[in-house]
Amino acid sequence: MDPSFIPFFRPRGVVLVGASHDPGKLGYGVAANLVQSGYQGAIHFVNPKGGRLFDRPVHADLSLVPDPVDLAVLIIPAPTVPEALRACGRRGVRAAIVLSGGFREVGPEGTALEAECRRAARELGIRLLGPNCVGIIDTHLPLDTTFLPPPSPAPGDVAFISHSGAICAAVTDWATGQGFGLSLLVSLGNQADLTETDMLAPVAEDAHTRVLTLYLEGIGDGRRFVEEAGAVARRKPIIALKVGRSAGGRRAAASHTGALAGQEVAYDAAFHRAGVIRAETSEEMFDWSRALAWCPLPAGPDVAVLTNAGGPGVIAADAVERYGLRLAELQEGTRTALREFLPPVASVRNPVDILASASPVQYARSLHLLLADPGVHSVLVILPPPPRDPAEVVAASLIPVIRGAAKPVVVALMGENLIRAAGERLRAARVPDYRCPERAASALAILLRRAEMLAHPAAPVVTFEDVRRAEVRRLLADHRGGTGEFLEQSTAGRMLAAYRIPYAAVELARTADEAVEVARRVGFPVALKVASPQIPHKSDAGGIALNLPDAAAVAEGFARIMQTARTAFPGANILGVHVQRMLPPGQEVIVGAVADPQFGPLVMFGSGGVEVEGLRDVAFALAPLSRDDAERLLTSTWAGRRLSGYRHLPPADRDAVLDVLLRLAQLAADFPEIAEIEINPLRVFPAARGAVAVDARVRLQTGEEPAVLGKAG
Amino acid sequence: MDPSFIPFFRPRGVVLVGASHDPGKLGYGVAANLVQSGYQGAIHFVNPKGGRLFDRPVHADLSLVPDPVDLAVLIIPAPTVPEALRACGRRGVRAAIVLSGGFREVGPEGTALEAECRRAARELGIRLLGPNCVGIIDTHLPLDTTFLPPPSPAPGDVAFISHSGAICAAVTDWATGQGFGLSLLVSLGNQADLTETDMLAPVAEDAHTRVLTLYLEGIGDGRRFVEEAGAVARRKPIIALKVGRSAGGRRAAASHTGALAGQEVAYDAAFHRAGVIRAETSEEMFDWSRALAWCPLPAGPDVAVLTNAGGPGVIAADAVERYGLRLAELQEGTRTALREFLPPVASVRNPVDILASASPVQYARSLHLLLADPGVHSVLVILPPPPRDPAEVVAASLIPVIRGAAKPVVVALMGENLIRAAGERLRAARVPDYRCPERAASALAILLRRAEMLAHPAAPVVTFEDVRRAEVRRLLADHRGGTGEFLEQSTAGRMLAAYRIPYAAVELARTADEAVEVARRVGFPVALKVASPQIPHKSDAGGIALNLPDAAAVAEGFARIMQTARTAFPGANILGVHVQRMLPPGQEVIVGAVADPQFGPLVMFGSGGVEVEGLRDVAFALAPLSRDDAERLLTSTWAGRRLSGYRHLPPADRDAVLDVLLRLAQLAADFPEIAEIEINPLRVFPAARGAVAVDARVRLQTGEEPAVLGKAG
Repeated sequence: MDPSFIPFFRPRGVVLVGASHDPGKLGYGVAANLVQSGYQGAIHFVNPKGGRLFDRPVHADLSLVPDPVDLAVLIIPAPTVPEALRACGRRGVRAAIVLSGGFREVGPEGTALEAECRRAARELGIRLLGPNCVGIIDTHLPLDTTFLPPPSPAPGDVAFISHSGAICAAVTDWATGQGFGLSLLVSLGNQADLTETDMLAPVAEDAHTRVLTLYLEGIGDGRRFVEEAGAVARRKPIIALKVGRSAGGRRAAASHTGALAGQEVAYDAAFHRAGVIRAETSEEMFDWSRALAWCPLPAGPDVAVLTNAGGPGVIAADAVERYGLRLAELQEGTRTALREFLPPVASVRNPVDILASASPVQYARSLHLLLADPGVHSVLVILPPPPRDPAEVVAASLIPVIRGAAKPVVVALMGENLIRAAGERLRAARVPDYRCPERAASALAILLRRAEMLAHPAAPVVTFEDVRRAEVRRLLADHRGGTGEFLEQSTAGRMLAAYRIPYAAVELARTADEAVEVARRVGFPVALKVASPQIPHKSDAGGIALNLPDAAAVAEGFARIMQTARTAFPGANILGVHVQRMLPPGQEVIVGAVADPQFGPLVMFGSGGVEVEGLRDVAFALAPLSRDDAERLLTSTWAGRRLSGYRHLPPADRDAVLDVLLRLAQLAADFPEIAEIEINPLRVFPAARGAVAVDARVRLQTGEEPAVLGKAG
Repeated sequence: MDPSFIPFFRPRGVVLVGASHDPGKLGYGVAANLVQSGYQGAIHFVNPKGGRLFDRPVHADLSLVPDPVDLAVLIIPAPTVPEALRACGRRGVRAAIVLSGGFREVGPEGTALEAECRRAARELGIRLLGPNCVGIIDTHLPLDTTFLPPPSPAPGDVAFISHSGAICAAVTDWATGQGFGLSLLVSLGNQADLTETDMLAPVAEDAHTRVLTLYLEGIGDGRRFVEEAGAVARRKPIIALKVGRSAGGRRAAASHTGALAGQEVAYDAAFHRAGVIRAETSEEMFDWSRALAWCPLPAGPDVAVLTNAGGPGVIAADAVERYGLRLAELQEGTRTALREFLPPVASVRNPVDILASASPVQYARSLHLLLADPGVHSVLVILPPPPRDPAEVVAASLIPVIRGAAKPVVVALMGENLIRAAGERLRAARVPDYRCPERAASALAILLRRAEMLAHPAAPVVTFEDVRRAEVRRLLADHRGGTGEFLEQSTAGRMLAAYRIPYAAVELARTADEAVEVARRVGFPVALKVASPQIPHKSDAGGIALNLPDAAAVAEGFARIMQTARTAFPGANILGVHVQRMLPPGQEVIVGAVADPQFGPLVMFGSGGVEVEGLRDVAFALAPLSRDDAERLLTSTWAGRRLSGYRHLPPADRDAVLDVLLRLAQLAADFPEIAEIEINPLRVFPAARGAVAVDARVRLQTGEEPAVLGKAG
């Protein structure tokens, strides 16, 4: 662990600055939690009023606090915090948790105060958690620096890192009520210094933490988060609940890629890259975390459902399919063995229904047999309030079978009062229980996802050596238009060519005669497209004429396009038309990239043409791409699946598309000054015949868009 | 109420046949529940052993039971049930609940026994609930005929009707634990006589029932369910949890419509038609039912969020948008009034954040102001474990404001132990509480859906009088192919024409010469399509040639198509080719109908062409259609929205598409012997220029497919 984090997680002595004798004040609550948590290090209190509190002296001043002390917890009025931090520095304390509010969250004055705190902390080498946070709880050490109402959460295996303090309060109360524990709780507050990204590695190093859960409202440095979270997630699962979807809003965008690449798409792509599992609700997050903390991982998707009633079995079967798992096909041997001791009308097909009359022993024997079936990768046990035996007796008979298995077992304990004792027994034995089969199935699905992620280590990013970076750099430098404008189309074409992305040769013609001359040279039939940096969607403006068979048609087409474009875009600088030979037919797809302010370039693939925003058949990934990333973009869109052929549609050159995707991603990653780059359409010819960019556009970042630092060599 | 149902819901006297002295037997549990439920009518026990039970005589025989008695509850071995039913008949009891298992669910013998029960009941005029069911609970009467472990659910406003007995046990325990009541519980068991559909109207007549909830595993008579549920849902909300998605499987289908119209699509369409709300989980069903039972309906989608912490406010804002609601824009007057008593750093924009320091009075005043804002249609109040006052004190201050409002208010009570008392107070005051903002928002969304449904009474089904039913009947009668085959294409065309659906004239040519001759007559350029009842997807078989400009091309095209088709479909009866004049360009959509075995004809609309199954841009509705139904098919698909124009794509003739949809639906409804009918593509020309079926196919029901009774006049 970075030594500067040690005092937060393993302090030798803690001083509470602002300890209070008044039980109505938060400074009292923190003191009480500190003492009652059972923390074994030194606890010191500071308050100018002095006196004694919880059988300990209250020092008038930080300088009077004896050794050992390496962590300060501050709960004092905001304006006094900077000076208190300086006092920490003088006393040699290099870690501070500022619980006090009254900073950035209250307006400009508070923001200035927070900046002063940050400055003070930097100058004195102090790492700062908060301000305006709830603090840290370590249930195993134990240590509780918060003012949350008791009881503290029970010791557990799941760490919770939160941007919101109120959520911390709700989560600890909820965890206590639901009967499961936490290992660590870290409330980040205003993040004047330490952020969610900083906390990942130290929290992951905690021996008791088996799963990290994050409540996120946004991420400051996206690329750093992806790196840190990616490294941690290889060792311990991370589940994130990212809120603020509605707050996102769309960024200004002139390309389809830009219009479709919302903030949430970027978060999804970033979480995917880092191997972070995204939850939609806190319930889901903790449902999954218990399974990840307690269960072995499954070797495959095949689930056996063990039930004593038909209805819940059907619900479970539905849920198994909905979450992408499969109902296991039981071996004949398993079915025979089940039949030996079950009533004849029991169902020994999956879901295995051992009937309402099932005894605890029958439950346990059935589970044992299902776990022994090589075609079963995990088991979902259903236990409604049983008419025969108390649920806790059934649970007790199941526990040794579950603990002895190398396959995951989750239990749907249906009901509430009649299954409470059973739930407590299961959780004490580290067996995850859920109130309904759906949630149990969703937990099994997450275990499989985790297993698959670990089985497929991140593939290396593909970097082509045959690209001509210097040429693109020169093209960008030579670009004379203002930033924020589209590059001239021939420039865009040369940029693609420099990265060896095939581009249908296009020539600019300023007059009808020139257009005819070019058409004669490239060969009829030709297509004409209006050439203007101010007209992004050419087809919208009547700016395209296709399949012109001869000189007369070209001359007529030129005149019509120029007139229509001048009428539709009176202010635009219209250079003439681009002339392109008509290409053979093929499937048309879209490939693009857009610079995300948090996460850098984001690559898009999907169904191309003018309807891309209507059909929304697109997928995104962070650039640059590995071959697996590019494959996933294809398999997760209809456009991509169709490349392999569909009914009478012949297979297209899928490899050529992968190549273009990888190269475009590399281009976008190499040149962060590119705001948007889009090939629409990329025409894909039949297998082994290649693909060609028919149209492309490139827009550079304006001054206002924060460019992520590039690494163009 | 149908008089035959009265004994189930308002019996004057109940006899339990199979009452037992042995506490380990279900016959004892039922007796105990009957007595302890507080039922005020006569309770009689029958058991050949006689004796006394719960201070009552046990009669040796049904014939000895004194008046009054009009409901029998049977919990005796299955083989003795038919005779017991006959004894009921002799004693004049016309309503029986058979709790005993051992019938259809155990195999052929049980099935025979069940048939005997049904016969006995029919002969004697007995209505039968079960067998193999849990019985009925009425919490208000009160009456409990079940063997469910006590306690009975608390009295409430929500009725629960279930195909599964185990779910009944789980639901009652869960309701008790969660602290909410039920009005009625009806367990249907094997439905030898009474089904879910039969129970809808009687349950809806119960004065205490404000919402009906259904757990369904399938529906026998789909059209009757739609009618009954539709009538009930106009008066009281119905929420259904339909399970068994995975069990559905696909039916054999040769059209795109058939391939896409799974069983669940039919259920969705049926529920939509009936105004039944479909829940995905039981949690969702009861979350929604409490809001529907207790809250006034909102006048619109605009939600105000009242919170004392930022994080949960963000979660709520996200959820509000996710469920199709909107964050209300507060009036300036509301904001000013809030500012008057809130701290300056409180946020008076929606979500309104009154800070952790908020007092119960501030909560109540803020809520009062939000409810008074005319731009607010509903309020979501968030209450995390508050650092200041106990949650129940805040709840108590909110309740009078909520009860006095004509707008719905739901409360997200976050946590568990610290908010338990608050939840109890809210529920006692009939204010719905949820453990997280997401679930609270989803309940508000359901209230809006209910309000919108009531505001838009079902539009009348459109019936065109200018159709020629007799001609279609003749065409179907003349059809000489086997059932299950596709009709000859010209027959399909004439069928569409009889219903005034424009069909591109097509002529059959058996030789190349004939093809050229037809082409000369209709005018070049033409299209050729292979003509064979055994080749459903013509383009798959290389069976299409387009845009043939002259006689030579037609002759050559004819030869190629015939050769390709003979190679690809060696056994097919190939009649020649259909010749069609090439049509002007237009948007291509698909319109089809398929006969669902439960619900009858189901109409589909969507993006047409060969990729329809890949893109899955389709929507379904039950035929026949109202104009609203047809509109919804358009607005819920991209293909439909695109008809109104998109970017440079001009508006197409949307009205013509609506007309085709309505007419095709009428055709499918008039002739239930049609298994599948599909127009793909329907080419839609620019506005006011019409639409034309370019290709169509019709397949008739085979003997195995159960045809729904038709109403063709």
